[in-house]
Amino acid sequence: MSAQSFSDWMSHIQSRTEDALHRALPGERIAPARLHAAMRYATLGGGKRVRALLCHAAGELTGASAETLDTAACALELVHAYSLVHDDLPCMDDDKLRRGKPTCHIEFDEATALLVGDALQTLAFDLLSAPGLAKPARQLEMASLLARASGSRGMAGGQAIDLQSVGKQLDITELEFMHIHKTGALIRAAVLLGALAGEPMTSEARHRVEHFGNCIGLLFQVVDDILDVSATTARLGKTAGKDAAQNKPTYVSLLGLPQARERAQALKADAIESLAPFGPRADRLAQITDYIISREF
Amino acid sequence: MSAQSFSDWMSHIQSRTEDALHRALPGERIAPARLHAAMRYATLGGGKRVRALLCHAAGELTGASAETLDTAACALELVHAYSLVHDDLPCMDDDKLRRGKPTCHIEFDEATALLVGDALQTLAFDLLSAPGLAKPARQLEMASLLARASGSRGMAGGQAIDLQSVGKQLDITELEFMHIHKTGALIRAAVLLGALAGEPMTSEARHRVEHFGNCIGLLFQVVDDILDVSATTARLGKTAGKDAAQNKPTYVSLLGLPQARERAQALKADAIESLAPFGPRADRLAQITDYIISREF
Repeated sequence: MSAQSFSDWMSHIQSRTEDALHRALPGERIAPARLHAAMRYATLGGGKRVRALLCHAAGELTGASAETLDTAACALELVHAYSLVHDDLPCMDDDKLRRGKPTCHIEFDEATALLVGDALQTLAFDLLSAPGLAKPARQLEMASLLARASGSRGMAGGQAIDLQSVGKQLDITELEFMHIHKTGALIRAAVLLGALAGEPMTSEARHRVEHFGNCIGLLFQVVDDILDVSATTARLGKTAGKDAAQNKPTYVSLLGLPQARERAQALKADAIESLAPFGPRADRLAQITDYIISREF
Repeated sequence: MSAQSFSDWMSHIQSRTEDALHRALPGERIAPARLHAAMRYATLGGGKRVRALLCHAAGELTGASAETLDTAACALELVHAYSLVHDDLPCMDDDKLRRGKPTCHIEFDEATALLVGDALQTLAFDLLSAPGLAKPARQLEMASLLARASGSRGMAGGQAIDLQSVGKQLDITELEFMHIHKTGALIRAAVLLGALAGEPMTSEARHRVEHFGNCIGLLFQVVDDILDVSATTARLGKTAGKDAAQNKPTYVSLLGLPQARERAQALKADAIESLAPFGPRADRLAQITDYIISREF
């Protein structure tokens, strides 16, 4: 790890991710221009780029090149952006505000937002399958990992479980099952994709990376649930208090705020513990873990 | 080519594609069960599987294995199925009938149909990136080809152009630009994916395969436009006359029925011509070309 402060490193990665997305997305003058403008609107200029940060930080574990990590980070952020665009649609969460701006279907229209999500997903796999990113077998593994994490047994499946859970009583096991899919799978994929972008790992190292990814995925959602009740709409850049208003089960509604905070601390400790053998190469991942949990305090 | 009749061969490929899709799609008991049931509903038990047929037929050009072709054919049919599910949604074509059955959002609900399309697309890339399908570099090429064909500069882009063209006067060049993206790109990809699944091609052979793919992609759409005005809803299994009712430009509205038929014949001749050097290995592709144009007569 360089001597760069975490906050400088974070700005640096956010900025190079923005640049990489800018290059990866088709220009607004390329036909179909309106679709490309909407894809850029939905993806650029916003977001903390947590998945890109995790990917780059995990890449330090295995000495991955910044260029390969940029592409992997773009693919992750594109999948995340697609999921937000579709999640905001009237038939899903019907949200009008995202990252402080009108959501894609409000700024453009529903049909365009549908196609934006579709095409952003495709672009993610386009990037991961384009020649020259890494050794072909490794690249396939990365594409396969992203597909597993985002499909019906990953993120999209988590959305489906979420839909079915509105107004229902879930217990904590069912809630975690939902979150492990809905948010956790892509967060975990971000960590693994970064680590896969470098030198081969021993199977023990890989297990540790996977365990870290699982912990951080859940941690992220616990903190999100806490923020939903404790932060303001302005601070979140999206509508606060929505889960409670929609009677959606959350960590806070199931455990109460103090215990949800305890759960977050326990997940953080477990995550950090799994990084121990990596030494200073894991410093950025540890810092991100701190950052994620500190969003709440 | 075996001595099997075209009709027997077609039934055989349709049946093995159905089996392969059955295996590739998660079972209805795997959580989230409702999403998986809806994915199976939208994909299985219907359709002529034109993209699978083209893929298998093109595989004969390069001696591809039936198993590799099954996976490529599944990926193509999954992308096609996803596009139909999203295309039928109220914010797009708002269609209630597809392959003679209620569309996915009618049978389930809009949110589920949205996720079905999303997850079917992901599954296509999951299949193409899973290890062992072909040599890794070749497999990446196949995944990349499918991504290019289905994204914003392919199929999804064609849908966007289609949206913008409703009620507008297009000329024949603009109409072809739209169709080359909307339908042509995936049809072309079906041909190329099949040919890529086998032995390496010379660059001349590849150019011929691409040219054949371009011709057949347009031919397919010209015939579709002709069918939209000349066939009944029962025969199509979807609502007939929709394009005219929605004032969408078609080959028929621009050229008139006789000239649209002439255009189809010319595309067929061009397609068949490009296959000449392949000899009998191209017989199935030639037969499919006949089959596509004969749907209309």
